[in-house]
Formats: sequence, structure tokens, C-alpha cells
Amino acid sequence: MARALRLAERGLYTTDPNPRVGCVLVKEGVIVGEGWHERAGEGHAEVNALRAAGESARGADCYVTLEPCSHYGRTPPCAEALVKAGVRRVIAAMEDPNPSVAGKGLALLRGAGVESEVGCMAAEAYELNLGFFKRMSDGRPWVRVKVASSLDGRSALHNGVSKWITGAAAREDVQKLRARSSAVITGIGTIIADNPSLNVRGPELEQACNGKLRQPMRVALDSQLRFPADSNMLKLPGKILLVACTDPSEGWLAQRQSSGADLEVLKLAGENGRIDLKALLSTLAARECNEVLVEAGANLAGAFVAQGLADEIWTYTAPKLMGEGRPAFVLPRYEQMDQVITLKLNDVRQVGDDVRMIWRKE
Amino acid sequence: MARALRLAERGLYTTDPNPRVGCVLVKEGVIVGEGWHERAGEGHAEVNALRAAGESARGADCYVTLEPCSHYGRTPPCAEALVKAGVRRVIAAMEDPNPSVAGKGLALLRGAGVESEVGCMAAEAYELNLGFFKRMSDGRPWVRVKVASSLDGRSALHNGVSKWITGAAAREDVQKLRARSSAVITGIGTIIADNPSLNVRGPELEQACNGKLRQPMRVALDSQLRFPADSNMLKLPGKILLVACTDPSEGWLAQRQSSGADLEVLKLAGENGRIDLKALLSTLAARECNEVLVEAGANLAGAFVAQGLADEIWTYTAPKLMGEGRPAFVLPRYEQMDQVITLKLNDVRQVGDDVRMIWRKE
Repeated sequence: MARALRLAERGLYTTDPNPRVGCVLVKEGVIVGEGWHERAGEGHAEVNALRAAGESARGADCYVTLEPCSHYGRTPPCAEALVKAGVRRVIAAMEDPNPSVAGKGLALLRGAGVESEVGCMAAEAYELNLGFFKRMSDGRPWVRVKVASSLDGRSALHNGVSKWITGAAAREDVQKLRARSSAVITGIGTIIADNPSLNVRGPELEQACNGKLRQPMRVALDSQLRFPADSNMLKLPGKILLVACTDPSEGWLAQRQSSGADLEVLKLAGENGRIDLKALLSTLAARECNEVLVEAGANLAGAFVAQGLADEIWTYTAPKLMGEGRPAFVLPRYEQMDQVITLKLNDVRQVGDDVRMIWRKE
Repeated sequence: MARALRLAERGLYTTDPNPRVGCVLVKEGVIVGEGWHERAGEGHAEVNALRAAGESARGADCYVTLEPCSHYGRTPPCAEALVKAGVRRVIAAMEDPNPSVAGKGLALLRGAGVESEVGCMAAEAYELNLGFFKRMSDGRPWVRVKVASSLDGRSALHNGVSKWITGAAAREDVQKLRARSSAVITGIGTIIADNPSLNVRGPELEQACNGKLRQPMRVALDSQLRFPADSNMLKLPGKILLVACTDPSEGWLAQRQSSGADLEVLKLAGENGRIDLKALLSTLAARECNEVLVEAGANLAGAFVAQGLADEIWTYTAPKLMGEGRPAFVLPRYEQMDQVITLKLNDVRQVGDDVRMIWRKE
């Protein structure tokens, strides 16, 4: 199963919106075939492993990181293919939370006389697809908020200057975060101040994806439609979802779409002239977003956190003391220590000269 | 030498103001004796190792983490003792920077026909006594600034509330920091707000020290002599050095010494009614302080850092977001990223639920 998980991981940047799945076929202690899911619409992990094994699949044990599917989706059901190939036993790490599978794959296998088990290395398998699972169970994507700050917690100097706080290695690491995300969310403040393209770059990532690197959808929160017509985001291919509290005029939209940019405007007005973040997340889940990355300024990052919508916070801490400056999160004023937001450390490591910490909701 | 370093470490909390030193005697691949320096005035590492080895010391190789001394201090010179015992070869990790030794120990050994080398695992040996070395070379102690903050860089809520940001494990870890320090420095703001005792506590530390745990000198920076007569610091044994910009009246001092507290007032006025921190550090070095710990509020912590006097910063980061609040360091207003203070990560690890990072001057 550990091997199957490693294989599944190869799809980290490419399977979206599908889950990352790996599969290993073992007969008499020898691996006779293995495979992983690479891209939506292409072969599932089990099918790829069966193809690799050929006739040797007969009588083999199948280790797979997610319950084999039982329905006709973009590809035929894997549970059937495993039965047909004569596999003796199926060991799945987790049940598929997808309501159109949810135990039916395992039931189909058992009905056909194939032994099947579930639960082996479930925690590890969960980690690999936490966005997919969250979408299936809660109708919301897994929300990751990324911030870069100095060790005294500043995300910019008092005058807004912030280039660069973290080093090249940390910024490359963020490219990987973007690459595994279905969508990257930012705010209009950041767009106007920094004019980012928010795309995924890097030859290393291209190579890791066999040239199949996808670009996440870019989501811009722009309640008052201040999105500049000459934004760098419009110059690059890939979907842009502009979320506003008001409808744009035809001319406004036409001007921004004129160069062929794939720009859609969505109205999701919440309270106090702000965008309804919960509705936004439901919309993104409905559009098959598994993991979304919030790369925004202190106001928007703070809003996600304060509303309890951030599942994970990634902090990159630079070996710098910046003195007077801006915070990484704008949050309410708390009066007592038991009111503050408490998280749980999930991971800490050095990335270049910086320290990356991953924090999760308690 | 690795073994000798481990032995030296046993003196971490007890040798002050002496350096921590370990010694291993090896003959024909077998350890025939070992020792470490435990407390000033007691046997040096070499003498303890020779005693353990007895007659077996003759012809042995001596691994010692610091050059054997050549002068009559609190104990007779170790270099002579090694010669007398008939040791064949001495391998020292470092030369002793103490001007009354500084190569003379090794010279004495060579003069007596004992082979000697220096430099083996010098970096590790340096780490163990960086305060002692800094005092010998620069006439200042090694200054360690400790701060506890939330992951958004707050050391207190907007109203000053800060108990507790970090967890029990981090606070215990700070006890170890205090225990290895010659002095703990704090500011009058902290003394008035928190009324700390600033002593070293903990049965684990007591045990680690064989009951020989010392209490660091407590240094209170109190420019205007606001030190409360009922401070908890006065209720515990151990030296208190009160540093002020003005001389106290006899009555003021008598009131605070009445319960037998060992309180001394030192006048070290700097500019703008502030205490001269550089003069303070020179004074502490003259009083044989090797490592000093600054446990203070944002103003004093910031002053040490901004004046370039902090050799090391220890940050304990709690898994909390505190929102509006006080910074960990009050520093100047920088206008450009190339003006900010840049440090270097030395160590990062999880301590309980918190993350401890050690940063050093670049």
C-alpha cells in the first residue's frame, strides 16, 4: 500500500478534479503490475495496473489507495475490470466518498467472489485527497491559506513594500501549492498592488507532470469591479472567475475579454458590501474544485480564517525582523486569550533560508 | 571527542562562570577514564578523567573539548597533571581563548614531549561555550533574546493580556534556557506587569544538576527606579542587579533590602534617559557572565536587537492567531526591504504544541 500511495502521489498536479489514486498488483510476493491515475478522462489506476500486469493479474492481490469505482463515469467501472481480470483479493485504503461509489465498488467485488478489505493506511490515503473528500462530504473544497511573513509577523513594511520577504526556495514551494490546487483565490487589493499573473511556473513542475501540468482556475474577489483592464492575469491563458457584489456592464466585460481572456463574472453579494465567502466555496465545489489556495492580503486571509473557512494555513517565515508593518491577517480584536483562534501544527520544515509551518484547524 | 562533548554537556547548568569541558582517556581503543567539569572550584575535566583512569592513564590518548589549562586558577594546571600522568597524546577540540591560557597549555605539553593537536570537532566545542568564548574575545556575554508569540507575531493582545500564549512544554524549555544563563535580564515594564520571580524551577533540572543547580543573576533594567518594594523577585534568594539611570536614596534601597534580598543598584545612564545597554553588557562580562538571557517586553527586546547586541533570538511560536495585539519587538520604521534586520536560522523544532526557532545574527 505504501508503494501504491507513492504512485498515487505522481498524480498530485494532474488528476484534478479526480482524486489521486495508485494501484499495485502483487502475486506471490512479487509486484506483477502497477499504475496510477494521471489525468481525468485517462485510465484509472487499477486499469493502468491491470494493463501492466496482463495475464499475471489473475490470482493477484490488488492494493489500491481508494475503493475501485462501480459506475460508468469518464471511464468504465474499475471494480468490473478487476473481477474480469481474475484478481483474488482487493485491499483498499479508503472507501470512495463519492455518492455514486460509496461502498458499491467493494460490494460489487464481494458479490463477484473477490475478497475485499478497506482501511489499510487510511490516514495517509486521506491526506492525498483531502480536497476531494471534503468536497464529497461537505460540498466545499479544502481551503489552504498561504502567508509569507517576517519572524515578527509582518507581511509588508508600513508603506506596503514586501518584495521579497521570503527567498527563492519558498517562492518555488508556493508554485507547487498552486499546481496542486483546483483554484487560486486572491483579492482585488493584491491584484491592483502587485499585478500578479497567478499562474503555475517552473520547468521542474513541468517535468514532474510529464508535460501535463494544468493551470488552476484563478479566482479574483472584486466586490466593486475594480479589476484593471490591463491586468497581467488577462494576458495568460486559463480561466479567470471574477467574483463581485454587482453585475458588470457589457462594455466593462467586453473590454476585459477583448484579448480573448476566459473571464467570467459571478455575483455573490454577502453582507456589508462584501462577497459571501461561504457561497463562493459552495460554488467552487459545485465546479469540482477540490483544493483551493488563498493567496491574498491580510484582509482576505483574515476573513477566511475568522469565518472558520480556512482548513489549513501555510506560513513561510523569513529570517527577518521588519519592525513596524502590516500584519499577515486582519482579525477581530480579542479581549481574552480564550477567544483567540487556536490551530494545530501539522508540519514544520526549513525551505531554503525560511521556515515553512503547516497549521490546521483544531 | 564526540563522547567528550557529551560529557562536557553534563555541566551545562553548573560550570558557570567556567566553560563546560569533557575529557576522555583512550588506550588501545578502550576508554580507560573519563570526566567532566561540574562546578567552578571543583576538579577540571582532565583531572577527573585522570583520577578515573588511575595508573591506566600512562600511555593513553587524551581527548579534551578545550585546551588544558596552564595556569594556577581555582585548581592547579591540567597540562602539568597530564604530563605527570604520562599521557602519550592530547587532542583538544579548541584552544582556550582565556588570555592566561591561549596556547600555553598546548605549548607546555609539547615542551614536555607530549604530542598535541587542536581542532577536532571545533565547531561543536564552540557551540557548547559560545558565551565563554564571546566574553574572552569581545568582553561581552553571548546575548540570547527569547520571545513567545502567536503565529501572527503577537506577544500580547491589544489590552496587554498574554497568559498564556505558549504551552507548558515551551515554558519548561525556557527554564532550561534560564538555567544555562549567567544572568537573566528583564525590564521594569515586565516586572510591574507580571511580577515574575525569574528564578529557575523544575525537579527535572534539579535532578540533571545533581542538586547543584545554580540560580542566574537577575538583572532588572529600571531607569527611573520604579522597582516595587513588594516584588516577587525580592522574595527569592539570589543576586538582583538593578540597573538605573539615577542613584536611589538610602531609604529606597533599605526598604527593598530589608527582607535580606541581595539587591545591588548600578547606575549606567545612556542617551535619552535610557540605560546604556553596551555598558551593561561590558559590566556583565567583567562580572564573568558568559550567556545572558533577555526575557523582556517588546521595547527592551527590540532595543537589544536594533542595537545589534542580540547574538541569538529564540522564538516560541504558538499555534494561535491573536489578531490585533502587541508586537514581539518594537523596532524602527524601515522604508525598504534592504533595511530590515536579517538573521540566519540555526535550529527549528516542535516543543509541545509550539514551534521553537533559533535565529542568529548573520
